[in-house]
Amino acid sequence: MIRIAVDAMGGDYAPGEIIKGAVQAAGRRDDIQIILIGQEDVVREELKKYNFREGQITVQNATEVIATEEPPVNAIRKKKDSSLVVGMNMVKRGEADAIVSAGSSGAILVGGQVIVGRIKGVERPPLAPLIPTEKGVSLLIDCGANVDARPSHLVQFARMGSIYMEHVVGVKNPRVAIVNIGAEEEKGNALVKETFPLLKECPGINFIGSIEAREIPHGGADVVVCEAFVGNVILKLYEGVGATLLSKVKEGMMSSLRSKIGALLVKPALKETLKSFDASKYGGAPLLGLNGLVVKTHGNSKATEVCNSIIQCVTFKEQGINEKIRESLGREKTEEGKE
Amino acid sequence: MIRIAVDAMGGDYAPGEIIKGAVQAAGRRDDIQIILIGQEDVVREELKKYNFREGQITVQNATEVIATEEPPVNAIRKKKDSSLVVGMNMVKRGEADAIVSAGSSGAILVGGQVIVGRIKGVERPPLAPLIPTEKGVSLLIDCGANVDARPSHLVQFARMGSIYMEHVVGVKNPRVAIVNIGAEEEKGNALVKETFPLLKECPGINFIGSIEAREIPHGGADVVVCEAFVGNVILKLYEGVGATLLSKVKEGMMSSLRSKIGALLVKPALKETLKSFDASKYGGAPLLGLNGLVVKTHGNSKATEVCNSIIQCVTFKEQGINEKIRESLGREKTEEGKE
Repeated sequence: MIRIAVDAMGGDYAPGEIIKGAVQAAGRRDDIQIILIGQEDVVREELKKYNFREGQITVQNATEVIATEEPPVNAIRKKKDSSLVVGMNMVKRGEADAIVSAGSSGAILVGGQVIVGRIKGVERPPLAPLIPTEKGVSLLIDCGANVDARPSHLVQFARMGSIYMEHVVGVKNPRVAIVNIGAEEEKGNALVKETFPLLKECPGINFIGSIEAREIPHGGADVVVCEAFVGNVILKLYEGVGATLLSKVKEGMMSSLRSKIGALLVKPALKETLKSFDASKYGGAPLLGLNGLVVKTHGNSKATEVCNSIIQCVTFKEQGINEKIRESLGREKTEEGKE
Repeated sequence: MIRIAVDAMGGDYAPGEIIKGAVQAAGRRDDIQIILIGQEDVVREELKKYNFREGQITVQNATEVIATEEPPVNAIRKKKDSSLVVGMNMVKRGEADAIVSAGSSGAILVGGQVIVGRIKGVERPPLAPLIPTEKGVSLLIDCGANVDARPSHLVQFARMGSIYMEHVVGVKNPRVAIVNIGAEEEKGNALVKETFPLLKECPGINFIGSIEAREIPHGGADVVVCEAFVGNVILKLYEGVGATLLSKVKEGMMSSLRSKIGALLVKPALKETLKSFDASKYGGAPLLGLNGLVVKTHGNSKATEVCNSIIQCVTFKEQGINEKIRESLGREKTEEGKE
C-alpha cells in the first residue's frame, strides 16, 4: 500500500479540483491510500460529491492555509497547522510516502528542505519539471530555489535527473546535456566550464555535451542540466512564448470571415496536435533528493494534473527512486574513496 | 553623407541577398553611401544585375572570407584581408560610420572589441537584438560574448539600451527591467541582487524593477537587462519554442482533409498576424558602446533584413547615439566624482 498525502488547500482550484483529482487517482489504483489534508469540514463536504472505496481516502485535519504571497520561510516556520506543513511532517515521520501540492512554490521548496530533509549526501534538492518537446518531454533540472549553484551540485542534478527520467518517465539511457551558449567545450560561463569536465567523467550517466537553448524544444536532450536561475528563465519563457504565439494564431484566425470559417475546420485537429505539446499528463515537478517525495503541481492544476501527479508518486515509490539515488551517490563516494 | 560598410561575404545567402539588400537601401536613401566589401570580381558581377546611382555604391576588395566555424580570435588575428576585418578597419579609421555583417557572430564580437574599439568609459560592449513581443519589440541586452558580467556592466547596458530604444526604435522613456526569477527585490542570484539597487539609483533611466521571463513575450519591459549567458538562452529559446510551436500548428493543419481545407482559408490571415511577431523589420542587433557602429544581422538574413539594417545605421548616426552614450557615461563619472 502506497500512502500519498495531498495538500487539499493549495492551488487556484483548491479544494474542488484537488479533491476531484484525488478521487480519480483512487479509482485508477487499488493499491494506494490517499490522505487529504485540509480543513476537515470543507474537505468532507466536498468528498460527499464522490463515490470511492471506504478507507481508500482519509482526511487529516489542518486548520491553516499558506497563501501564495506569504514569505516562504515565515510561512513554514509559523503555520505549523497548515495543510502543507502537516502533510510534510507526515512524510518525515513515514506516515506518508509522498506529498502532492499545488500550493506556493516557495513554501514547498523551503518545507521540502527544512521539514522532509535531504537524503544523506545530497547537497541541494533540485526541482525538476518536465517540459514538452517535439519528441515528447525533457526533464529540466534545476528550476528550484538554489541560486548560485556550484559544479558539484550540477553533477548531482545530472545523476538524480537521469535516474528519474529512466525509471519514472521510462526513457532508456537518457541523454544528459548541460545548457550552454554554444556547442563547443570551451564555451560558457565559469560554472559551465568547471562543470563540463566533471559531467564528462561522471559514471552512470549518458552525457552528450552542451545543449543550446534553441535545441531544447526540439528535444535535443532528455535531461537538461542547468542552475536554477537559468532553469527558471527557461521554464517561464517556454510558457510566455507559447502563450503569446498561440494568442497570435487565434488573433489571426479571428481576423476575417474567411479565416473564421477556416478556423472552425482546423480547430479539432489543431487541438489534438497541441495536446501533444503539453507535459501535464506526466504529473507535476518532483523535488528530488529528499527523504520522501515532494511533488509540486502547477498552481492552476485541475483534477487531471492532480491525478497524474499522484500516479507519478506511485511509480516513484515502486521504482525505488530514492534507493537508487542513495546508491548512486554512495557509489560516487566509494569511487572518490578509491582514488 | 553617411557611409556604411557592408560585409558582402558573410551570411548564408552571401553575396547575392546581401548585395540585393544594399541596393534596396541605396534606393531608399539618397544621403547614404554604401561600401560593399568582398572579393571584387564576385561583387561587381553580382552588382551588374541592378541599377543604382553612380558612386552611391562602391566596392572595396577583400580577398579572404571568415567561415562560421572558425575560432573567432584566430580569424580576426590572421585573416587581415577578410571582408569583416577590412570593413572594421574602415570604421576604425573613420572611412565608414558603420558596418553591417551577417557573418560569424563570434568574429563580429571579437572584431568589434579588438579592431573598432570601445568608447572610453564603456567596460563591455553588449550585443542587443530586438525581440518580438505582443506589443511590438523589446531590446534584449546583453546577448553577446561577455560571460560572468559584473553589476557595473549591467548598469551600463541599461543606460546604453535606453538610449538606443528611445532614439533609434522611437520608444519614449523606455521601461527598463532586469531579468529575475521573481518580482520581489530580495529574489535573484548574487549578480541580480547587487545590480538591482544600482539600477534603482541610476539617473536617466526609467527602471521598473524585475521582469520574470514569462512576461518578456508579453512586452513587460522595453529594455530587458541581463548578463550574456541568460540573454543568449532567452534569445535562442525564443527561436526554438517559436519554431516548434509553429511546426506543431502546421502539423495539426495538415492532419486531415477537413483541416487542410481550413488551413487554406486561414493561411493569409495567419501569415499577416505572425508577421507582426517578427523583429527583422527593425534590422539587426547593434554591438553598442564602440567607436563606430557594428550591426550583426542574422546569418540567414535576406535582402530585406540587410536593407533594414543599413537604414538602422542611418538612424543611429543621425540621432548621434554614440555622442549620447559618451555624454551619459561622462555624466555618470561626474556624478560619482561629486559623492
